[in-house]
Amino acid sequence: MSDLGSFQELCRSSRCPARRGRLYTAHGIIETPAFMPVGTQATVKSMTPEELRDCGAQVILGNTYHLYLRPGHKVIKRLGGLHHFMGWERPILTDSGGFQLYSLAGLRKVDRDGVTFRSHIDGSLHRLTPELVIEIQEDLGSDVMMCLDDCISYPAEDNEIREASELTVSWARRCLDAKTRDDLLLFSIIQGGTSRKWRRQTALELLGLGFDGYAIGGLSVGEPKGLMLEMMDCTRSLIPDRYPVYAMGIGSPEDLVEGVARGIDMFDCVMPTRNARNGMLFTSFGHIVIKNSRFVEDPRPIDPLCMCYTCRHFSRAYLRHLFVARELLAYRLNTIHNLYYFLHLMEEMRKAIEADTFEDFRRKFYSRRGDQDRL
Amino acid sequence: MSDLGSFQELCRSSRCPARRGRLYTAHGIIETPAFMPVGTQATVKSMTPEELRDCGAQVILGNTYHLYLRPGHKVIKRLGGLHHFMGWERPILTDSGGFQLYSLAGLRKVDRDGVTFRSHIDGSLHRLTPELVIEIQEDLGSDVMMCLDDCISYPAEDNEIREASELTVSWARRCLDAKTRDDLLLFSIIQGGTSRKWRRQTALELLGLGFDGYAIGGLSVGEPKGLMLEMMDCTRSLIPDRYPVYAMGIGSPEDLVEGVARGIDMFDCVMPTRNARNGMLFTSFGHIVIKNSRFVEDPRPIDPLCMCYTCRHFSRAYLRHLFVARELLAYRLNTIHNLYYFLHLMEEMRKAIEADTFEDFRRKFYSRRGDQDRL
Repeated sequence: MSDLGSFQELCRSSRCPARRGRLYTAHGIIETPAFMPVGTQATVKSMTPEELRDCGAQVILGNTYHLYLRPGHKVIKRLGGLHHFMGWERPILTDSGGFQLYSLAGLRKVDRDGVTFRSHIDGSLHRLTPELVIEIQEDLGSDVMMCLDDCISYPAEDNEIREASELTVSWARRCLDAKTRDDLLLFSIIQGGTSRKWRRQTALELLGLGFDGYAIGGLSVGEPKGLMLEMMDCTRSLIPDRYPVYAMGIGSPEDLVEGVARGIDMFDCVMPTRNARNGMLFTSFGHIVIKNSRFVEDPRPIDPLCMCYTCRHFSRAYLRHLFVARELLAYRLNTIHNLYYFLHLMEEMRKAIEADTFEDFRRKFYSRRGDQDRL
Repeated sequence: MSDLGSFQELCRSSRCPARRGRLYTAHGIIETPAFMPVGTQATVKSMTPEELRDCGAQVILGNTYHLYLRPGHKVIKRLGGLHHFMGWERPILTDSGGFQLYSLAGLRKVDRDGVTFRSHIDGSLHRLTPELVIEIQEDLGSDVMMCLDDCISYPAEDNEIREASELTVSWARRCLDAKTRDDLLLFSIIQGGTSRKWRRQTALELLGLGFDGYAIGGLSVGEPKGLMLEMMDCTRSLIPDRYPVYAMGIGSPEDLVEGVARGIDMFDCVMPTRNARNGMLFTSFGHIVIKNSRFVEDPRPIDPLCMCYTCRHFSRAYLRHLFVARELLAYRLNTIHNLYYFLHLMEEMRKAIEADTFEDFRRKFYSRRGDQDRL
């Protein structure tokens, strides 16, 4: 526990910024680079905690906005905190609600002091401030809390970027002041849109305040892929190596590989779970859409190279049948597979960095994806 | 395998017809009295085979009508049969489609040779005959197949009962003739509505043909509970003890206790699984409706006496949250609990019969249900 909050870089690739690290939290160690499955409403949709663990999840992400609205952070606090409430004993990171509020668009109003918004559930009026966001996350007992930030859309005018960046820094300062628990970590979020200037400005100010880790926010909000990677690169290079760096809302398997190659340590994305429920399944050779009629009698597993529960037990034909019949088991078996795919990909990258073969891994990753005949 | 299809009565209560038995099938022994969870579309909704087994399921029921329509019995046959398709290694009983066709009402037309109907999925026209129903079930590889029957509503005129009973007997004869596989058992279904005369007549004719077991059909179709038990009693008494007796579509926990008390060996019902998805959970003291606001902060398990996975890990407060938020995990955790409740109830009855304490068990079962304060 004396190491709590410290980040340790174990080794790094000799040919790119990819690195292996370890983040110490109150609920255990996170081996990085790590992908965090999204558990919005105190559950990673359709999964039990045991299944998540079996898929290789080390840490999951909870949504402050959703849990605040339902069942409420005070309810969860009285029931022993989020870990106990949902039966998950490993680390939990919670976002600050900033991104959900950004997604609400017309239903929210930002001022210097905080955000006023209407609930997506019942339209009731609410207000989140930096102080309340910390109180909520402390009540939940998140191992890693995030500062409230002001996320903007792409493209944005320079003055809009400036205002959001300044607000994000001012709120981060207030979050730091509001924090009362030493056992929980607090990360701040570097905004700045697609402006190198404002990314740099925000990063320097937040680094001056001293957080346990730094997130790159406002990516994957509609900008071209090249620009996203460029912003990731430039923002990452501003953060000293002693801090863990988290790319929020990233990404696809390709994004994860590129993020790791750029020295990112943590990721989260709804892609594996959401796409699973829509029947889009990831494989080493690309993705398949399980409802496709060519799978009607396909006795093969989703991915012949995969060792997940779903691939070890069920055929594409069965999974297609479940999906077409809208059976609950479909969402679950698909989610197990996709999560395993993402988490196993991270594990392979961690091993490759340790063996200093990351660039080989990256090349093979892309060459397999060119092999569409094997789908 | 030499015992295949044989039913063995192990012991019986000294004070009522309740009995312990064993039915030998190609996929193993069914310890009776047994409850069969319903797996309509090659899945017990939301459950993996492992979870079903952990809940205590020995045998599950599949629906011929649904599997014929989707994905089709020929597809399942080519994929290695229903057991392999869905990953369930224990016995499977399939119904004949008779009850589903009865439920289609206006969409079907019965004639002497079979039933013409429109699919509930796409309205396409289909025809089931006794011969086809056996072919489908043999293709699926059901350990226990059921004869096609003509089920009628309650109340029914005497001539309607007569016609349905005669048709059921004639179709049962054709099913027996159509059967080609020795490794699969075939049960016939005793119809006869609420007429003692026609129940008796049908039973005697079907007994004359010689099946591996006998089912009591056409119960729980709207008749008063007293009449249902009376028909169960009178039909049961017509069947020699060397045959397993199956009460189709029965029933509630109370119905199971009363059925066992009357010497019924097998049961199936959608109640535990369907009610789970509707948030109605069974406990030793009666049932609870999980969305009730009094459970918002209730830290207790559904049933303090229950040892199921759900009760060992999660609170009523968490289950209420999942249900209100319409999370997929809700349906699953609720289903695990309800199935465990039903299957554990059967196990307790088997033990009570072995110890010749069944009447004690029955009395305690009802007295606990009077103890509503413990809910």
